[in-house]
Amino acid sequence: MRYDAKPGAVAIAAAAFVNEGEAKMDASGGAELKSVGKRPIRPDGWDKVTGRAEFGADLSAPGMLVGRILRSPHAHARIKSIDTSKAEALPGVKSVVTAADMPVVSWEPDVMGYVPANYGHISENTIARDKVLYDGHAIAAVAATSARIAEKALGLIKVEYEILPHVLDVSEAMRPDAPILHERLRTEGLGKKTRKASNTALRVEYSIGDVDAGFAKADVIVERTFRTKPVHQGYIEPQAVLASASHDGHVDIWCSTQSQFVVRTVCSKILGMKTSQIRVYPTEIGGGFGGKIIPLIEPVAALLSRKSGRPVKMVASREEVFRAMGNAPGSHSKVRMGAMRDGRIVAADIEVKLQAGAYPGAPIQSGAGRAFGFYYIENARAVGYDVVVNQPKTSAYRAPGAPCALFAVESVVDDLAKKLEMDPLELRIINEAREGTSTVMGPPFNVIGCDEVLRTAKAHPHYSAPLKKGQGRGVACGFWFNSGGESSATLTINEDGTAALVSGSPDLSGTRISLAQMAAEELGIDVSLITPTVGDTGSVGYTFLTGGSRVTFATGIAVVEASRDVVRQACERAAKQWDIPAEAVKWEDGHALPVSPNAGDFPPMSLAEIAASTTKTGGPIAVSKSVDAPHLVGPGFGTHICDVDVDRDTGRVTVLRYTVVQDVGRAIHPSYVEGQLQGGASQGIGWALNEEMFHGADGRLQNAGFLDYRIPLTSDLPMIDTALVEVPNIHHPYGVRGVGETAICPPAAAVALAVSNAIGIRMTELPLSPTRILAALKAKDANGAG
Amino acid sequence: MRYDAKPGAVAIAAAAFVNEGEAKMDASGGAELKSVGKRPIRPDGWDKVTGRAEFGADLSAPGMLVGRILRSPHAHARIKSIDTSKAEALPGVKSVVTAADMPVVSWEPDVMGYVPANYGHISENTIARDKVLYDGHAIAAVAATSARIAEKALGLIKVEYEILPHVLDVSEAMRPDAPILHERLRTEGLGKKTRKASNTALRVEYSIGDVDAGFAKADVIVERTFRTKPVHQGYIEPQAVLASASHDGHVDIWCSTQSQFVVRTVCSKILGMKTSQIRVYPTEIGGGFGGKIIPLIEPVAALLSRKSGRPVKMVASREEVFRAMGNAPGSHSKVRMGAMRDGRIVAADIEVKLQAGAYPGAPIQSGAGRAFGFYYIENARAVGYDVVVNQPKTSAYRAPGAPCALFAVESVVDDLAKKLEMDPLELRIINEAREGTSTVMGPPFNVIGCDEVLRTAKAHPHYSAPLKKGQGRGVACGFWFNSGGESSATLTINEDGTAALVSGSPDLSGTRISLAQMAAEELGIDVSLITPTVGDTGSVGYTFLTGGSRVTFATGIAVVEASRDVVRQACERAAKQWDIPAEAVKWEDGHALPVSPNAGDFPPMSLAEIAASTTKTGGPIAVSKSVDAPHLVGPGFGTHICDVDVDRDTGRVTVLRYTVVQDVGRAIHPSYVEGQLQGGASQGIGWALNEEMFHGADGRLQNAGFLDYRIPLTSDLPMIDTALVEVPNIHHPYGVRGVGETAICPPAAAVALAVSNAIGIRMTELPLSPTRILAALKAKDANGAG
Repeated sequence: MRYDAKPGAVAIAAAAFVNEGEAKMDASGGAELKSVGKRPIRPDGWDKVTGRAEFGADLSAPGMLVGRILRSPHAHARIKSIDTSKAEALPGVKSVVTAADMPVVSWEPDVMGYVPANYGHISENTIARDKVLYDGHAIAAVAATSARIAEKALGLIKVEYEILPHVLDVSEAMRPDAPILHERLRTEGLGKKTRKASNTALRVEYSIGDVDAGFAKADVIVERTFRTKPVHQGYIEPQAVLASASHDGHVDIWCSTQSQFVVRTVCSKILGMKTSQIRVYPTEIGGGFGGKIIPLIEPVAALLSRKSGRPVKMVASREEVFRAMGNAPGSHSKVRMGAMRDGRIVAADIEVKLQAGAYPGAPIQSGAGRAFGFYYIENARAVGYDVVVNQPKTSAYRAPGAPCALFAVESVVDDLAKKLEMDPLELRIINEAREGTSTVMGPPFNVIGCDEVLRTAKAHPHYSAPLKKGQGRGVACGFWFNSGGESSATLTINEDGTAALVSGSPDLSGTRISLAQMAAEELGIDVSLITPTVGDTGSVGYTFLTGGSRVTFATGIAVVEASRDVVRQACERAAKQWDIPAEAVKWEDGHALPVSPNAGDFPPMSLAEIAASTTKTGGPIAVSKSVDAPHLVGPGFGTHICDVDVDRDTGRVTVLRYTVVQDVGRAIHPSYVEGQLQGGASQGIGWALNEEMFHGADGRLQNAGFLDYRIPLTSDLPMIDTALVEVPNIHHPYGVRGVGETAICPPAAAVALAVSNAIGIRMTELPLSPTRILAALKAKDANGAG
Repeated sequence: MRYDAKPGAVAIAAAAFVNEGEAKMDASGGAELKSVGKRPIRPDGWDKVTGRAEFGADLSAPGMLVGRILRSPHAHARIKSIDTSKAEALPGVKSVVTAADMPVVSWEPDVMGYVPANYGHISENTIARDKVLYDGHAIAAVAATSARIAEKALGLIKVEYEILPHVLDVSEAMRPDAPILHERLRTEGLGKKTRKASNTALRVEYSIGDVDAGFAKADVIVERTFRTKPVHQGYIEPQAVLASASHDGHVDIWCSTQSQFVVRTVCSKILGMKTSQIRVYPTEIGGGFGGKIIPLIEPVAALLSRKSGRPVKMVASREEVFRAMGNAPGSHSKVRMGAMRDGRIVAADIEVKLQAGAYPGAPIQSGAGRAFGFYYIENARAVGYDVVVNQPKTSAYRAPGAPCALFAVESVVDDLAKKLEMDPLELRIINEAREGTSTVMGPPFNVIGCDEVLRTAKAHPHYSAPLKKGQGRGVACGFWFNSGGESSATLTINEDGTAALVSGSPDLSGTRISLAQMAAEELGIDVSLITPTVGDTGSVGYTFLTGGSRVTFATGIAVVEASRDVVRQACERAAKQWDIPAEAVKWEDGHALPVSPNAGDFPPMSLAEIAASTTKTGGPIAVSKSVDAPHLVGPGFGTHICDVDVDRDTGRVTVLRYTVVQDVGRAIHPSYVEGQLQGGASQGIGWALNEEMFHGADGRLQNAGFLDYRIPLTSDLPMIDTALVEVPNIHHPYGVRGVGETAICPPAAAVALAVSNAIGIRMTELPLSPTRILAALKAKDANGAG
């Protein structure tokens, strides 16, 4: 069902331009909102701070076994044989599984919800079949009565390998003489397929206008190449699962996931089960950021449980998380942009090579096709390459692909501004995306907040604050299209007029309270009277993942639709009691009342009164609504301002001040919107400054832990300022836009430009680690000296 | 919403008269049913036989405490003081609660779902406030780190009692000089209230016609008095609960219950909480039979958890179950019936005194007002008394009140047959209830199966089988009106066309599979593709208890309505893909197809195909339906035939053969319908022959365990034969009538008449224990000798 916002929401879109989350706005024609926009206490807060909340690793079951996975020590090798007999014979070992326990799954394209998926790849990434493709690739798994026994059993599994040459870098993997990961992989693109095996799975090309003609007329042209390293999402909680198989073939799975439904789908596809045989219960989740979408240990735990007939618990170690659970791709990109003297950008060209890891699927659509989304450029082209390398299959990480591409694009835009001697935000305002413009991939934007964001940033005190010597400021922009898709919610009214709200969306960011706030607004009751929970796959309708910044938008629409149906039914019940037509009853402020004195003279009837009398009016009120929310209709735009200081002796960068300006559509719960903006900026700063996965010459990961893989600590960061711009999304009843992903798009460029400005050297390779900065300074000094 | 069965169901009502559960019938006009009426394997079967199923006592939580309850050793005493200080000081004790920790709850009438309830009574029965009213009445509770510490702590609680005289027998409790349990209790009845305190809470009187005139014209009149003892439901699993309170005031409760919603309501009312603050998860349940409706230990566990801040688990001991959890009432009744020479019963009068236990609420409506339901009698009167005594508050037990009353009525009808020298079933056929007749309470019956049941019984080979010397045969009838009420179900279609079915009805008798069968029939898919589960209070709409033989009827209607909405949506989705109007699509055999060749030329589209393409047609299909099913519209009628042998030396009765004939409306899953009939008969046989609660002169229960309270073992019983008569209920789409309760109504009379016929002595007092039979034989010999 396609949702269309009420006219009220459209009407205020243009006028809505505020910097304050508390601002009162109105999607329904004038009345002040009572719940939306407020900052109530989240219902999961107490349990999280007192330790009562159950995360994946907190689960247990009677007779539970401990599962452990044997992982490849080689970056690339053929599996000649696996002998598990000694492990199976070890007392306490209850099941051992290898790929031989799983059906062979076709590499044919399939879907997962509304996105393409290849379950053959997922199956082989879960447990390697013929070859191991990266250090950490799973080969076998054991369930035993203790962790000690399970680990001992792993040591008893004998694997014969034929070690093969490996390739880690995306450009190297594209060379004709590179070691080939998959003999059956061909390069697809523009409807053609190569005849020879290749590590390049896909080449995409999008274009609008005439790029060559654009460059021909440009007054200034900038071209640069950029490199970024693979980085990890760095979620606090490693993957954890408890699987319990029944003797009749059903499996119950409790796990930390961004989507219980995706876990169910994947297990169903790669274990050859009906979805009705699998029930997945999402636990509380300690961060995901895209890294907990595709289940990797869950199917293994299910297999071990089926084979042993006992519940099996598996908790990934931090080392396993880094070695095998997937990270964001590293990238090489080249950007060329040309502008007229007046600042109008007339041509833009980008080529992005993204390393997919061991199986294809790097996010080249968003990494290339939407790289220029912030701008209205008549002539643009984007080329992307999806390339396999001997590293873990990458997984989604907050705005997949975009940070790499935007690091490049925004750096070049800044270069253009310097060449044109224009203020970089002024240059952006000249070229800004507007209603009707589009990315090279389309579709055209509807009402967006790009202009409001740029003007707010430009007017922000931070942008004009003075800098000290040796300090630098960077400003960069980012855009994310934001997803829609399938979501479900069930709203049931309790007999005292309180309510239970179940959605299918795991709560990664405070969505329980934001969904409850929208229901409370619709019902006209206090949000504390609504208990919002996350349903398992057996209790709520299909809901696609928590990701793509889609929950408050898409699941929010399902919640609002369910709420409106409850209100409709509540009005009918009141009408029944008053013996007047249902059309003669309206809903106001949590009460049914006659539409006019002529309709009847009855005092307003509260939801509690209506709920208490449902036995007289037709039974309980419980509504399930499922929606397929439209995609790409609520794009979010952001501009980040970053000040840094660089220690020229150590190369250490200190972020002095950081401001995020973003169009959030409508901040349902401003605190958690601010949190998303701060979180995105923090992760982006880590990506820009420190995060990097190091591999040895043997292709093995050398820093599989937080001691050696450095994410920003609180002490590394200033308080991140936020300015919420609210230009409502016309496709959501409260104007919601996704907010989680846009926020990680600008930081890499903003920080790199700040550093570049501070040290006077253009930095084009991330991370800007002390080593790399010192090297740059040394090279500059050498050049200067030379 | 009032459900009206399709015309098809009505049309076949008269014709449907078969003795075989597998019979194909049709509620929709001719097509053979594919799922309804079959005997698929229940989805909970494997888990129950392998031990994987989780019952209340299987639960655990980190940091869990053990709760124990201090119970009164006195049948009646005033609590002068309670000192818990020593218990609180015991190391390991984390919380101690008394009535002082609970709000005082008004005795004003309230409701629970659609039935009256008195939460003041329930509160005081949960933990005694001023007086203890029976041996076993809870006084205080302790939560400690171990059972040993909790039990030690109970011993440290000092209670000062003023012991009061007690009364156990219902007739004695009605005497003016009886000890008064509640100073504030008055006798209500016919709109009046006594001025003096009384143990009789309520006197009801129902009548039709002119009873005195009826008796005046009767040719034969029989009058007798009867007595039955309190009996226990004898469920295998004692009450068990795990309660976990959050610091924000929410409580999660896992428990063995017949209604998660009733547990929520009661906890909400007596603990002063919003229902939205309580989430109740029903575990698997090891029998309830009415005894697990009102929660008694659940609120205590919640209190202990709130006070300690830790999860608290409580599992009742068998002794506690017998001493405090409620049993069926004992009764005294007097029946007088008069008939004409031709067999027509022209007058009937019954007075039933039921002992409510410590608080009012004996089932006198069904115990008196519906006692003559099997018959069409023009002049009838029923008087019932609801009387408190110093025994546990009675709880529901399968057809509450009816077995006591029907023991009396059916015995007298048999006497009439003897006096009239008529076959007892022939006499019943002459007087049978028919469409349009009613009980003295009403309402008039619609299509019922009384006649079909009587004729099936009369024609049954058992009824005419020869008996040996010393053996006796009894035949008796029973009737139960069957409830409707509020039920909810959610049906969600998975992406592979399988389905998840959630209802709010705990499964006591195979209702998961019977509900799934109805959904499968509607959807046209195999029942194995539907996973039926029981939802908790936070995930499914309000559903009244599993009881009143209402689940397959009322929740079944919700399931069928949800299924039909799914089918409607599936047709719409197919229409959308075919680009034809939704009205041009019909559903047949699990597929959407054009209503006619003119509507379009498309191959049938399966539910799996429709489910796989919901992203193209509007999102997932998930439907919640809540209904308020009509009450008293699907009465069940049964006739039981019982043969016994009586050992004249020991008084031991052996049941030789037993046949249950019952109108079940439509047997959705015949095996479980047969199981209900067999179970009801078995429990009734126990009631008739052995079950009895013994009290000492001090008012304390003396046989609080299965060694001394004897329920029938498998070795005590023959295989119970069943004959399913199917006269569809016109108010259910598949014709379902409740089947669980009717089956316990006839056994007491059938067995007693068989014994009476075997020994030639009219037995009017239950149980027919060896002691009582020997005494009767001795008295008869003495009379004979004298």
